[in-house]
Amino acid sequence: MSAKYKLIVDEIERDILDGKYNSIGKLPTEEELVATYGVSRTTVRKAIGILSSKGYIYQVQGSGIFIRESILKGYISLETLKGFTRDFPNREIESKVINIEVIQADEKLARKMKCDIGTNVYYVKRLRIIDGNTFSMEYSYYNKDIIPYLNEEIAKSSIYSYILDDLKLNIGFADKLIYADKMDEESAKYLGLAMDDPALVIDNTVFLNNGNIFEVSKVIHNYKHAKLLKLATF
Amino acid sequence: MSAKYKLIVDEIERDILDGKYNSIGKLPTEEELVATYGVSRTTVRKAIGILSSKGYIYQVQGSGIFIRESILKGYISLETLKGFTRDFPNREIESKVINIEVIQADEKLARKMKCDIGTNVYYVKRLRIIDGNTFSMEYSYYNKDIIPYLNEEIAKSSIYSYILDDLKLNIGFADKLIYADKMDEESAKYLGLAMDDPALVIDNTVFLNNGNIFEVSKVIHNYKHAKLLKLATF
Repeated sequence: MSAKYKLIVDEIERDILDGKYNSIGKLPTEEELVATYGVSRTTVRKAIGILSSKGYIYQVQGSGIFIRESILKGYISLETLKGFTRDFPNREIESKVINIEVIQADEKLARKMKCDIGTNVYYVKRLRIIDGNTFSMEYSYYNKDIIPYLNEEIAKSSIYSYILDDLKLNIGFADKLIYADKMDEESAKYLGLAMDDPALVIDNTVFLNNGNIFEVSKVIHNYKHAKLLKLATF
Repeated sequence: MSAKYKLIVDEIERDILDGKYNSIGKLPTEEELVATYGVSRTTVRKAIGILSSKGYIYQVQGSGIFIRESILKGYISLETLKGFTRDFPNREIESKVINIEVIQADEKLARKMKCDIGTNVYYVKRLRIIDGNTFSMEYSYYNKDIIPYLNEEIAKSSIYSYILDDLKLNIGFADKLIYADKMDEESAKYLGLAMDDPALVIDNTVFLNNGNIFEVSKVIHNYKHAKLLKLATF
């Protein structure tokens, strides 16, 4: 169960990403938000505070609540913990499942996932295509003790929607380690690039609310198409 | 002038990055924070909410307020809007100023900086070295109408400390566009890499509180040493 201000934050966030405010570039006033959502001014202010610290908006005294321009440009945001499918309802997302199998965690994987050696883990290889361009190769591991079932159909649509809506798990947070490297042979092949082309790599460790790791993944991005946006606040 | 909870957020943030809680991996309890900072429980809760949404901590009911483990590992965080020097007091940061000059903004730069063509702009080229390793080449532009003076001495220590402490400007937020590319010849030379080695690139646009752009920069990172951490929350 979420606090009321969190629901408002989610709703405004979705509206911003959906492009609801693209033409005007501003949020409604505090008064209008109070009226629209039927909540107190305190709740609206709390929501606005969170949205500011998440980097979506900024307030200029006397002028209103502005939406950060780069969001309006539709770059893929690094905040996309909810998965491409949820965060980019207006983009054409295609996922090709290259492989899905259950493996046993070896020592290295067990250390990364903080699970016992030998734990059953789903290993999913997917190629993501956004708006017709190869975008990334994902090599993901899901702890089967937490995600008891996965199949190609789920992996082809949205694993995160399944985890949230069907398994009703509380995804909490993620560590993303971002770096550049040379393309490996397999990723280059699927992304249509040459070996030793540059790769934008993100190593993800994703946690439930309670601090347990359910996913570890390596995502290799196509340097020709993947530009990720990070909104920082001071 | 900042609200009281923001001061508490800054203080706890600095303590976390400084490693004050590294041995225990947790923050003090709400009660202890109330006593330490001499503020109300509401203020402490607000600060904890912001620190959670910034990704520094997570709460587990009945167990306490945990610090995200990857922070404890000392990766360079993508949240480092305050500059390396402020954010990493425990690391050895060296800046070599390759060039500093005043130029006039051409059409392309003026568009990026949202200033008039011909505006005087400081162009600063710096090599950053962290803990003895070449880390990044920075190509930065500062609008001289906002940053009226810069010199090599300032650029060699910390431009951000100068902007904050001496110019007393209110830095607001930054857009960071992150991607991989092939190394250019100049950056490769200074970083000690080969041309066509992969580069982790960040294009920064940095705003004052009022939404005015004072800095635009391109930072080319050494792929052998630069791993950046993004803490995402759901």
